[in-house]
Amino acid sequence: MLEVTLLGCGATMPLPGRATATCAVKYHGHVALLDCGEGTQVAARQAGVSLVRIDAICLTHYHGDHVFGLPGLLQTMASQGRTQPVFLLGPENGYAEMVELLLALAGPLPFAIQRRPLHLPQDAIYLWDGLLVKTQLLHHRVACVGYRFELPRAGRFQPDKAQALGVPCRLWGKLQKGECVQNTSGNPISPEQVMGKNRKGLSVVYATDTAPFAELPIFAKEADLLICDATYAEEESLEKAQLYGHSTFAQCGQLAVQANVKRLWLTHFGGALTDPEAELPHAQQFYPCAEAGFDGKTIRLNFIDE
Amino acid sequence: MLEVTLLGCGATMPLPGRATATCAVKYHGHVALLDCGEGTQVAARQAGVSLVRIDAICLTHYHGDHVFGLPGLLQTMASQGRTQPVFLLGPENGYAEMVELLLALAGPLPFAIQRRPLHLPQDAIYLWDGLLVKTQLLHHRVACVGYRFELPRAGRFQPDKAQALGVPCRLWGKLQKGECVQNTSGNPISPEQVMGKNRKGLSVVYATDTAPFAELPIFAKEADLLICDATYAEEESLEKAQLYGHSTFAQCGQLAVQANVKRLWLTHFGGALTDPEAELPHAQQFYPCAEAGFDGKTIRLNFIDE
Repeated sequence: MLEVTLLGCGATMPLPGRATATCAVKYHGHVALLDCGEGTQVAARQAGVSLVRIDAICLTHYHGDHVFGLPGLLQTMASQGRTQPVFLLGPENGYAEMVELLLALAGPLPFAIQRRPLHLPQDAIYLWDGLLVKTQLLHHRVACVGYRFELPRAGRFQPDKAQALGVPCRLWGKLQKGECVQNTSGNPISPEQVMGKNRKGLSVVYATDTAPFAELPIFAKEADLLICDATYAEEESLEKAQLYGHSTFAQCGQLAVQANVKRLWLTHFGGALTDPEAELPHAQQFYPCAEAGFDGKTIRLNFIDE
Repeated sequence: MLEVTLLGCGATMPLPGRATATCAVKYHGHVALLDCGEGTQVAARQAGVSLVRIDAICLTHYHGDHVFGLPGLLQTMASQGRTQPVFLLGPENGYAEMVELLLALAGPLPFAIQRRPLHLPQDAIYLWDGLLVKTQLLHHRVACVGYRFELPRAGRFQPDKAQALGVPCRLWGKLQKGECVQNTSGNPISPEQVMGKNRKGLSVVYATDTAPFAELPIFAKEADLLICDATYAEEESLEKAQLYGHSTFAQCGQLAVQANVKRLWLTHFGGALTDPEAELPHAQQFYPCAEAGFDGKTIRLNFIDE
């Protein structure tokens, strides 16, 4: 099960009830934080997201509204007793300089920061327990990456095949976990021999800040949840959106259709956008199930037949 | 009239409804910001304190809970059209390094930062329109200063003296504003010749983070408002308070008595202190009018006979 919580849906500056861009993805009790704008700590506390369990911080880019919460977050994690290392991901362009600044401000920490600059335009990394993160260069004013979390799912275990191959019942669990075993005759048996075809896993895509571009629907393809830059509600802002590397509500709706995603959440609302719910029809004209993000909005995504 | 608004009453980390240490002093439409913890922007917006009118930022020291809101604040001031320079005050020890980091994070700004490292143990500077700020080294783990805002008040204008000295009525206003004029015979007349003895002005003291020490009651003497480090409520925490350079509620009450201040507000509450109001008796046993700070708490201080 993947749990996703939006912690900040604002662009540019924090507002009452709307922190700047941040999102948490929880899997197996560990948290990956996407961006860390000012207000992240308070939003996380209100949404019940544990800061001390953040194992990876995934920065999209280094604009202030995406990173200014980081020094304080790291200090709070320290004060809460964190000692395990934390991954710090972000686009390689500007990574060293920005991380240097943020860590200098945070001061000495009782845990290691595992630096992982992301290669452009694409990169991929396994976080923990098989959780895969793929990244894609977006279309913004500076190097900015989107994140796609993928949780693959093995095929169904086929007991008849295991029996036919002479694998004792007590070893079936190992095969299901992906390990090789020996059968009663001492011959090696691999998981592929007893597992069905891989089933559909889960995927979550976080794409902000960005204007639309050709590869984006491919990157977001068939995601269970797409969280998308929706800085501007109305089409009158299209030119401005393009200029600053952002998207409109309508463009989000179109992207969701092109990518054939299961759910669409809009986020990164501009300061003038006081009531995103009221503007949803701009996205829903293309993608009827579009939803407006809000700080604390949470979903649990389960494998289909669970 | 001096208007004082507490924008953050928390220590260490921002909490829902309690930003980290920040306070605003407004005079003649200009704002002096005392510290700038995370959450300052949102608290200011909620309390109606204009960020674009901040002419001076007065840092007590460089611990994260007092400065992490600064890069974002500066960016927001820029986005709101600020072009006038901003004073940046802070203790000279560590000033250059910290200001370098904070400004590097904020990036290019459309207004100048006027750097004013404060000499230790005491310093003084005029901000605007005669508003004087005195600073005093406090007793903390690092170099940390308290701020005393003083608004002096001239004596009463004595029209009989002005008349006797041959000053035309149309020039009386200039004398009241502190300017010299010429009387009807062409002789210079200075304000001292026509104004009574200086009257009691207004003063506000902000003393956090600090443990009590001998000079503190002198620095806070007869302030109209003393805002004081009250990290710990109970006397059981006395040893910890001393060790970390903080104060207890009782110590704040004792200080207020020793300094003979008019009002006492407690602030900089530790994270464990969830209901400061309930703990007030610890301070009130010494100073019965002690009040607990909260984000947005505001007072307007006027000259006595206004």
